[in-house]
Order: sequence, then C-alpha cells, then structure tokens
Amino acid sequence: MTENNTFSIAEAAAQAKSASRVVAQLTTTEKNALLTDIAAAISAGKDFILQENEKDISAGRAKGLTDAMLDRLLLTGPRIDDIADAIREIVALTDPVGDIRNLTLRPNGMQVGKMAIPLGVIAMIYEARPNVTAEAAALCIKSGNAVILRGGSEAIYSNLALAQCLHQVLQQHGISREIVTVIPDTSRGVIEDLLKQSQSIDLVIPRGGEGLIRYVTENSRIPVIQHFKGVCHLFIDKYADINKGLDILVNGKTQKPSACNALETLLVHKDIAAGFLPAAAKALVPAQVRIHACELSQPYFRDAAPATPEDYHAEYLAQEIAVKVVDGFDAAIGHINEFTSDHTEVIVSQDYSRAQQFIRRINSSVVMINASSRFSDGGQLGLGSEIGISTSKLHAYGPMGLEALTTEKFVVFGDGQIRD
Amino acid sequence: MTENNTFSIAEAAAQAKSASRVVAQLTTTEKNALLTDIAAAISAGKDFILQENEKDISAGRAKGLTDAMLDRLLLTGPRIDDIADAIREIVALTDPVGDIRNLTLRPNGMQVGKMAIPLGVIAMIYEARPNVTAEAAALCIKSGNAVILRGGSEAIYSNLALAQCLHQVLQQHGISREIVTVIPDTSRGVIEDLLKQSQSIDLVIPRGGEGLIRYVTENSRIPVIQHFKGVCHLFIDKYADINKGLDILVNGKTQKPSACNALETLLVHKDIAAGFLPAAAKALVPAQVRIHACELSQPYFRDAAPATPEDYHAEYLAQEIAVKVVDGFDAAIGHINEFTSDHTEVIVSQDYSRAQQFIRRINSSVVMINASSRFSDGGQLGLGSEIGISTSKLHAYGPMGLEALTTEKFVVFGDGQIRD
Repeated sequence: MTENNTFSIAEAAAQAKSASRVVAQLTTTEKNALLTDIAAAISAGKDFILQENEKDISAGRAKGLTDAMLDRLLLTGPRIDDIADAIREIVALTDPVGDIRNLTLRPNGMQVGKMAIPLGVIAMIYEARPNVTAEAAALCIKSGNAVILRGGSEAIYSNLALAQCLHQVLQQHGISREIVTVIPDTSRGVIEDLLKQSQSIDLVIPRGGEGLIRYVTENSRIPVIQHFKGVCHLFIDKYADINKGLDILVNGKTQKPSACNALETLLVHKDIAAGFLPAAAKALVPAQVRIHACELSQPYFRDAAPATPEDYHAEYLAQEIAVKVVDGFDAAIGHINEFTSDHTEVIVSQDYSRAQQFIRRINSSVVMINASSRFSDGGQLGLGSEIGISTSKLHAYGPMGLEALTTEKFVVFGDGQIRD
Repeated sequence: MTENNTFSIAEAAAQAKSASRVVAQLTTTEKNALLTDIAAAISAGKDFILQENEKDISAGRAKGLTDAMLDRLLLTGPRIDDIADAIREIVALTDPVGDIRNLTLRPNGMQVGKMAIPLGVIAMIYEARPNVTAEAAALCIKSGNAVILRGGSEAIYSNLALAQCLHQVLQQHGISREIVTVIPDTSRGVIEDLLKQSQSIDLVIPRGGEGLIRYVTENSRIPVIQHFKGVCHLFIDKYADINKGLDILVNGKTQKPSACNALETLLVHKDIAAGFLPAAAKALVPAQVRIHACELSQPYFRDAAPATPEDYHAEYLAQEIAVKVVDGFDAAIGHINEFTSDHTEVIVSQDYSRAQQFIRRINSSVVMINASSRFSDGGQLGLGSEIGISTSKLHAYGPMGLEALTTEKFVVFGDGQIRD
C-alpha cells in the first residue's frame, strides 16, 4: 500500500494477484497460525483501533450520519473482542483447499478427480461496517485467496487500523502483505477503477443496499455475486400445524425485521384461513406489525391497509407484512414464482407429499419446510461464517461460506496414457 | 418462434424463462423419453435436414467460405447419424437434477442439504457447426434448462431444420416448444440484444474463436463462460520416463493440432535436455512440426526458428511448437504461471513428490501427471458430452458437462424450529 495520493488500483490489483499465489500455497496449519495471531493482534491493538474508530465516529457525527449508521460504525471493547472471536471461529472451520473429490478410474487406467482451489483475488465492496474488514480478510485467507477491501469512506480510519494489525502479523510470518489490501482512497472513482481489473481480480462481492449492488453489477467487468433483496415468503398450507405456523410467522417477521431473511409476505391456503388468520392477527399485535392485507384476509385484521402489487414486491425491512389468501397449493407456488427474490421461501405443512413438492417446485436459494426463514444464514445453516449471499445462480446460490470462495480444477493421474 | 421480421429477442427470452419452469420439473424418465424421440426424429428427418443443409452449403460456396469452414458446415447421412447417436449418449448420462448432497443434522434438529437444480435459461452463441445446435439442446434439456441457440448465420437453414425436428417432438409430448429456441434472425444486432436479457437468461456460453468470445464477454450483462484459448504446456521433468515423455509429446502436439487441448509449449528440465531433446527432434519429424526453440534447445533441432516471447504466448493450432530448456522445477512452474491460458498443463515425471507438487502448484483448469493433454475433454475425463470449456474460475473451470449446467439450492427439513 503506497501513500493515498499515489495509490494505483491497477498496481494494487496486480500485486494482489501475485500475492494470491503465495496464500494459495499455504498449508492449513500455516493459515490457522496466521489467523490465530491476527485475532490476538486485534485484541492487543484494541486501544489503537478504538482511537482510530473515534475519528470515524466524530467525522460521522459532523456529517450528520443517522444513529443507526453511527451504531454500525461504532467499535467498542466488547465489539473488538467479538471480531477477534469471529476470526478464531474461522480458524476452527474446515479448510476446503486441496480436497480431491470424486476420484474415478477411467477405462484407460487414468484417475480423474476434482481438486478444490482458491479463486485467486476477491474484491469486497461494502458499507460502513468495520467488522466486515477483519472477517472478510480472515475468510479469504482461510480459503487461500488474496483480498482487496473497499469499505465505506465513513469507516476509513477504523479499516486502516484493522489493516495495520493484519499487516503486522503478515510481516511477522514473513508473508507478503499484499495478501490483504485495504484501499486507502475513499473516492467513488476508485470503485469504478477496481471493477475494471478483470486481469487480476476473480470475483467481486458487494455487500450493502440495493443501490450499491446495482451500481457494482452494472459497472463491473469482473463476475459479481448478486444479492439485491430478500422478499421471503411463508406459505401456511391447508395441512399446516397451526401452532408451528404461528411460531414461524412471528419469529420470521418480528425477531429481526431489518434482516434480509425476515418474512415479507404471508400466504395462507383458503381452507385454513379462518382457522389461522385470527390467531395470526393476535400473535402479530405485540410487535405492532403493520398489515397489508388482500381482500379475503382484510376482515381478520384491525387497521389493515389493502395489499397492492407493490406490497407483494416490497422488502419492508420493518414490522410490516403483506398477507394474501391463496386458492390452493398451485396458487401459492404461482405467487412465489411471480414475486420471488430467490432468497428464502418456507412452507408450513404436515402433508408429506406437499412439503416435498414445495421443495422440488420452488427454486429459490433456500427452501424450507416447517422452519423459520431466519435460519437462512451461513452460520445457522452450518457453513460457519458467511462472506455474503447470492441470489443469482451462477457459482454460488444462497449463503456463501469458505467453499464458495473456491473452485475446482481437474486433476489427472496417468501413467503414460495417450489418446487413440 | 414468430416470423423473422417480427422476432423479438426480449419476448423470446421471456418465453424461454417461463418454459424453463416446465423443463425444470420434468422427471428423468420424461426427459429421456423426449431425447430418445428427438434422436429418432433427427434420423427420420435426414432427407429434409440434408436438403436444408445444401442451401447453407451453396450459400457458403457463393460467399467464398474456406474448405475448412464448408467442412464444418457440411452435414452428411453419417454425420446426422452421429448427431442422433450423441443425443442417445446424453440419454445414458446420469441426471444431476434433484440430487440432495451433504444432508446434515443441525444441533436444533433441522436437516440441511443442497439440492442440484437447473440454472434456468442458457444462451449458446456459436459459429457454423450445426451439430452444436442439436447437442447443446439435448444437454440443456437433460439438465432441466431451457436454451436459446444463436448459431452462425452460415448454418441458419440447417439449424432451423434441426429445430423443426425438435419442436415436432416437443409438440408430440405436449411440452412447451419455447424450451428450445433457435433464433431465426441472423443479424449481428441480435447478439447485442440477447446479451442484455439478464432478466430472463441465466448464463451465456459462447463457442468459437477468441474474437467472438471477447465480443460476448465485453458486451454481456449476463454471466459468460469464458474460454479464450488453450496454450497447453508439457514439462519434461529431470526424472521423466523418456519414452512416456516422447509419446505424450507426439500425441499432444500432432494428433489433432487444431484442438484447444493440443500442446503449444514444451518445457524441458536442463538435466534431461541432452537425453530427451534429440529423441524429441526425431519424433516430431514425421508430422513436420515447426520448432521455435530457445537458445539452449536450438542445437538439437534442424531448422528451428528462435523462440520469442510471442511464441510462448502463441496458440499455434498447427504442427508448430515452442521449446524451452528450463533451469529447474521452479523455473518450469514460473514459466507456466507466466504464460498459462488456464487450460491444461502436463508434467512427465517418475518422482512422486515433484508430480504431487506440480498438481498442487499449478492451478490451470486441468493439471495432469504422465498423460496426454489431448485427454482434456469432457468425454475423455468422464463427463459424457461437453457443452463447453471454462478457463475462468467462476461457476465452472475446465470442461463442462451436465453438472456445470446446474446450481445448488439449500433445502431445510424442519419440524417447527424457530431462531432464538
């Protein structure tokens, strides 16, 4: 990393590419030792990191950032401990690199398999969350990738402080510091430049609002992991266990409405509407959930607004939900297929065949039977830490863990075979 | 498919998307029955297809196409039988769709797995090879995808004739004909339009020369499978079995030099150069291979041209090869990493550790020990038919079979679980 005024993205990307060959060759033991020391360095650097974070917070206050934004930006002693713990959890994850899968014998005696390898260089573009800086760097290192981090300008002092801790450990281990690059230039033009480095960067992962993700998608010459929004559906089937349905509805909608895996639309089979909706209306009262109801469901709710097509597209990210009574199973599938964001859809049903059909016919990235949409998360699904989520089908689909930061090459073990 | 003059790409792509939901839900039995009947219809339609192909051939002659191009365009009775046979081979392949992998139990009792699903809509953009039309359609149907085919304008009559056979069978089976769309409009603007349909199309696979692939890559708003060129390397290690090395050299260079998996550069360890190169020079004489030799290897060849850096980048696709003596194992790895096209690299060595190191340190899409680069092909590696080859790491890397036309969604089997 050179000084701000001479920083060249093309140069940084080329150095990252060359460093990616180094990190790709580290053994799991070496990578774990590195990450363990990075966690320790972050804990040990707490005072310095807090002092730099304070600069971001003051600047943010002066700029008039909202309380929510300041809270995302804020680091505290316990939050820094959480970052260090998150890195220690990544140490504990299984390293996918080097695994050979499906080694099979060809008729001519060659053995052919596929070996997991790192992607190369990952660029992360995200907003003002300093914890992403450390966790994304750790996930990339663990999966043998170099990483280029471009966080929100509001977090620049915090991000550079974390980078300093990382670089200090890389130096101690005698490993190229270009494995992790935090871009010091906070101008918007930097993103545009970054997205042109397809010679050096293998994948771009944007994390943030729909605007950022659209901007990156439309301007990138490098493959991008896309996740625009989460319009998650819950379908209460005719054969639903009503109590399970209520629990899953309340949990999905109210536990963390700002999350992309929160429920946004409730579909109810017409034959169970009279049994389910009165209880649902009551269950949603404590969290003061605003209801946008279709004609048939409106009578069950006090003060429900009429649901419009926009409501069925809406990602409220708030205590707000669209409710629709559907004519039957096919109508529920039809509605989901029309309005899906390819994030997460849930059926509540005790009927074996209908549950299986739902799983088969809905091709969103996460499809669930009788479980809360809030489980649609890398940690909850067993991936360990999550680097992002993909709602487009190429390369990865759904929450992405270490595995999604690798690809597979063919390996062939021969003994002199030639082709006829 | 509407008439040429009213054909709308956006409309066709939207119809393909809607049809993709139909083909995604067909069972393996249904898809195999469809493909078996398509193979039969192509055989039965031989006279009609030959008659339409004759129109392409006449037009091609009038346009002054080269003999090689005319040969690629030409269909004959036996070639049509080959197409039908290729489709029957696709029937015999394992259907990946619906497989659930890695179903594991979470601590809260949920079972979480990943199910293979079709990508959706695949667009193929290719040159004047009518066999691609039928085989790509069959691979997409087998993997549950809809397909949009845009072949070279030179093959338009042949492609539309094949499409007619396919559509007739789809109609007999009562299945939406929009599952397979052959674009009747042969203007170049059509490709531009097609590459904008990211709402409907999930993946673009271009097949053809580097120019076509660069054009598609640079103009697409849809993910593209890239395969620019194949500069395949053979490294004869110090501990090589010389006879295996000679066989693999001659096979890799001369058996089909026009293939992307043919050898383009020979690297020889300096300690074996005096033992290997005289025999290599002799072995390459019968095929009249032109040699571009480095300074150290030049004395071993009669009439060798001096190798320039351009030679190390060259994809000759002809009886021509660059030869370089390298200082050691690391120098060989370094040369490959500098000049790789990420296609296929081969080591010939009897030394266990060095062979393993080569596999580990070279991250091209296919890495081989003691086997001919000519095996770098979907059929030879055991994938069955190949829809294309990827030399970029996202989604697929190396030869692509049915599996590469699918993605994986998460499936969660719960029993009322909610998140704390």
